[in-house]
Amino acid sequence: MSILAVGSVALDSVETPFGHAERVIGGSAVFFSASASLLSDVSVVGVVGDDYPLDQLAFLKKRGVDLSAIQIESGESFSWVAKYHSDLSSRDTLETRLGVFGGFNPRIPKELQQSEYVFLGNIDPTLQHQVLDQVDSPTLVACDTMNYWIEGKRESLVDLLARVDIFMLNDEEARQLSEKTNLLQASRWIQERGPRVVVIKKGEHGAALFADDWVFFVPGFPLEQVFDPTGAGDAFAGGLLGYISKKNSTSVADLRRAVVYGSVLGSFAVQKFSIDGLRDLTESDIFRRVKQLNAMTTFEIDEGVEDFA
Amino acid sequence: MSILAVGSVALDSVETPFGHAERVIGGSAVFFSASASLLSDVSVVGVVGDDYPLDQLAFLKKRGVDLSAIQIESGESFSWVAKYHSDLSSRDTLETRLGVFGGFNPRIPKELQQSEYVFLGNIDPTLQHQVLDQVDSPTLVACDTMNYWIEGKRESLVDLLARVDIFMLNDEEARQLSEKTNLLQASRWIQERGPRVVVIKKGEHGAALFADDWVFFVPGFPLEQVFDPTGAGDAFAGGLLGYISKKNSTSVADLRRAVVYGSVLGSFAVQKFSIDGLRDLTESDIFRRVKQLNAMTTFEIDEGVEDFA
Repeated sequence: MSILAVGSVALDSVETPFGHAERVIGGSAVFFSASASLLSDVSVVGVVGDDYPLDQLAFLKKRGVDLSAIQIESGESFSWVAKYHSDLSSRDTLETRLGVFGGFNPRIPKELQQSEYVFLGNIDPTLQHQVLDQVDSPTLVACDTMNYWIEGKRESLVDLLARVDIFMLNDEEARQLSEKTNLLQASRWIQERGPRVVVIKKGEHGAALFADDWVFFVPGFPLEQVFDPTGAGDAFAGGLLGYISKKNSTSVADLRRAVVYGSVLGSFAVQKFSIDGLRDLTESDIFRRVKQLNAMTTFEIDEGVEDFA
Repeated sequence: MSILAVGSVALDSVETPFGHAERVIGGSAVFFSASASLLSDVSVVGVVGDDYPLDQLAFLKKRGVDLSAIQIESGESFSWVAKYHSDLSSRDTLETRLGVFGGFNPRIPKELQQSEYVFLGNIDPTLQHQVLDQVDSPTLVACDTMNYWIEGKRESLVDLLARVDIFMLNDEEARQLSEKTNLLQASRWIQERGPRVVVIKKGEHGAALFADDWVFFVPGFPLEQVFDPTGAGDAFAGGLLGYISKKNSTSVADLRRAVVYGSVLGSFAVQKFSIDGLRDLTESDIFRRVKQLNAMTTFEIDEGVEDFA
């Protein structure tokens, strides 16, 4: 199956304790597709200015990503400047220039309106609504967001939940949106407003998937060094939705594995600047980490214990 | 097998968003033994003042905990007053009165000097050394600590590492002790100084066990409501060491399960004030959560993926 991904296509300038990168390709749609395309077909809808180095997206095209619906407008591309703190778990945004992204009006081409799988990257919920207005009954809609929209576009975001199947956000955002400290309660609050599945991302601590009557946890893949956390959440979403699309299934077993693929792809993304950690990956690199995560989380229960319901 | 547990026996006054408790029984040795005794035999060495409500420890005695080596000194018992913040992940210590604990000089009775399993609760590393000086070649020494000792008794604590098999601490403490942000690097730093196994506790995010060439993660057992986090780490240690002692084994499979028992016992501890969450527990209550954690973390890898080494 193919995924329609709508999100930002940006130029990131990032400083971490280990180096800095200047105006490198980034944005939610770019990180998502660099990740998901390792598992599935992806078509990207986004907007860039006429200053965007589209040639740097060539490797995505080579991997089969359909970039034909990226609109090119005259003006500057969305750019973002940030500096991470020494522990990499927090950062200061030094500059955000929306450029042509400020007037982004996502247009879904006719041939993508029948998409089975839709990923709504972290953009204004009003635009996320607009995307869904243009798509005919997709099989599954996955959606990401951030604190900025929870604060500024709360009503539109809460309305959107009714149209979403898998809602993803980090733990702080889940608490902020639901106004509940407890994550079980927070995810239930979200589920009651629509999504069948809530995935809460917890950075180095991994992720938790909350469904009707079951929960699944996966740790973050342990790394000797995290180089640049930018895009980890979008790469996670790409692994998760890429796997679901590849299997064309949301069975319990596949959803569990999908979260594991999310964790694995997120771990590759943070090992280099920009999408470089996802650039030369092979299927076997991914499989190896999936297998390792399995070994890091598996335990057998003692005989007799299984009798306890 | 039986565990020798040395630690504080205290009176805690705790305020959480859900209520408050006044001078209730607590301390690392009390929480540890209330937890470990559900799985194994435990003997406690500690000190209390003549104001201590020893009758409130009666239920531990009934469960087979040997309290005969708790020294009673004239003076006041160790007491601690704290108030948790609304998210329960941080707290202010309002008062710490060492009382007779300030002059604690642990004496290990002859009959406990042959103990196979030793738990050094979170006390001054100098005292932890003193305990080990009095014990003949135990099979396994497990040790807990906290930021206070990392800051104030660093040298003694680092020396102690060479005498410890399983070292436990939380993620912030691991970073503080090793001066490494990355937890893989932090645990390796600790392992290089002695302990074969490092267990890093991560609160609601669970725990990670680092051994020679393998890592194991277990999530925190998800709870609708955490009532009082006091003692969670000691109850975790009790589950972990209680299981190891019960099985008399530190095989890879048993160490993995031991961490799971730690997580489960920790989860019961935080559901009520003091040790009340551990008081009326049955084996089947514990087994049920072990089984549930298994279901929350198990995933099958796809056919073919297992071929990737």
